[in-house]
Amino acid sequence: MKRIQIIKIGGEILDDVLRLDAFLKELACFSSPFVLVHGGGRKATGLASKLGVPQKMVDGRRITDGETLDIATMVYAGLINKQLVARLQALGTDAIGLSGADMNCIQASIRDKALMDYGFVGDLGSDSVKSSRFQMLLEAGLIPVVCAITHDKNGQLLNTNADTIACAIAIALSLFYEVQLNYCFGKNGVLGNPADEQSLIPHLSQTEYLRLKCTGSIHSGMIPKLDNAFKALQEGVKAVRIGEAGAIRHLVQNNKHYGTELSV
Amino acid sequence: MKRIQIIKIGGEILDDVLRLDAFLKELACFSSPFVLVHGGGRKATGLASKLGVPQKMVDGRRITDGETLDIATMVYAGLINKQLVARLQALGTDAIGLSGADMNCIQASIRDKALMDYGFVGDLGSDSVKSSRFQMLLEAGLIPVVCAITHDKNGQLLNTNADTIACAIAIALSLFYEVQLNYCFGKNGVLGNPADEQSLIPHLSQTEYLRLKCTGSIHSGMIPKLDNAFKALQEGVKAVRIGEAGAIRHLVQNNKHYGTELSV
Repeated sequence: MKRIQIIKIGGEILDDVLRLDAFLKELACFSSPFVLVHGGGRKATGLASKLGVPQKMVDGRRITDGETLDIATMVYAGLINKQLVARLQALGTDAIGLSGADMNCIQASIRDKALMDYGFVGDLGSDSVKSSRFQMLLEAGLIPVVCAITHDKNGQLLNTNADTIACAIAIALSLFYEVQLNYCFGKNGVLGNPADEQSLIPHLSQTEYLRLKCTGSIHSGMIPKLDNAFKALQEGVKAVRIGEAGAIRHLVQNNKHYGTELSV
Repeated sequence: MKRIQIIKIGGEILDDVLRLDAFLKELACFSSPFVLVHGGGRKATGLASKLGVPQKMVDGRRITDGETLDIATMVYAGLINKQLVARLQALGTDAIGLSGADMNCIQASIRDKALMDYGFVGDLGSDSVKSSRFQMLLEAGLIPVVCAITHDKNGQLLNTNADTIACAIAIALSLFYEVQLNYCFGKNGVLGNPADEQSLIPHLSQTEYLRLKCTGSIHSGMIPKLDNAFKALQEGVKAVRIGEAGAIRHLVQNNKHYGTELSV
């Protein structure tokens, strides 16, 4: 099986021109194919603020009303996606930007409103990612750059968590490739103490994760990320690594000195 | 040679939900492949106004400073492109949205600043459109939806006239397909008197065009559109039609009762 890297890049890197530039230069040196997945929450929040569109968060999740969806579509699928593609093209990487609507490559369902109405938020199911579409592009030597916008195939765009998209693409492609999923963000990896970058956990088993979640050592934004990551491992993804974006080369090479490696 | 339609849709249709919906329904019924090209100037102007970014126009052309380029990228490549793709997908048309940066399908050069600095505006040359990229998508049964953003392959996105993009795609693909180029907008076609929709010129030769341009009957926005259109005919495009978006079915069928047919 051919090897492929799925790389999720966090908002803190997207917002830092120098770190982003260094990260993209590293990516452009890869000889193996990859899929880059991004959101861009902070830029969307900034634009919403300039436009006077109030942002409602519930338990750290954004309520996506119509205006907020338009903002997310403009920032994720427009500005950030095309800037990433143009920069990768300049570096000799043949990138193509995608939302889930393009080629119907990721078809989501609007989140159930029974308990809480999150608005135009999309959830992914086991058949959401159309792997044949990604295969077609990858086999043609293209590098898909996927933003956090999907659709429902009934004409509605949907705001969808980028960590979840990366996980779903990794699982779908693991039928055809040896897939490694990499979550790249601003921290060194999963930390025993979020305030201490030296408290890196180099290897995290699912049992240990559940224990640290119970004790509160791992909390807030790391929980959905790690839930996605362990799900990926259980459903066919070969390896999952979480680490600092600048160490991407070491992460994809499974270098034990960088980031956190997960195991079930 | 296989037949293909290049369809440019004007901003006045994009801004009218009902007309746009009817237009997309017509497109979705086409049995032959097509490429849809769009800008979206009015929505970009609206967003610029909300954000307090002053828009400078010189001779009807927008000066694209950095902030204006970001706005154009958000509106054209993000909001409008993805809404069009999602609607076409809902209608069963397998659309894929593209900027020129994606797959490096349209590589432009920043406009020469010697006489006037238009900012981040891209001009197209004879090898700007990478026809093999469009062929790959079309042969896979995909419908490219192309927005008015290109790049220079050095990492810079560029605002590029959508009429010019449609013309350049039509010319590039005419080496491999029998290409018909259709400019669809709010008016019935080229009018002898712009104020009178009944003054439609059903057939316009280049000689007659040059005469009407001299007398001032044809002016302002129609001039670059028609210059592009006649260029396309001279460079291998089989037919060029200009007409009202609602008549798209008649335009592509070369129905003499609808729109203006051009000839060199």
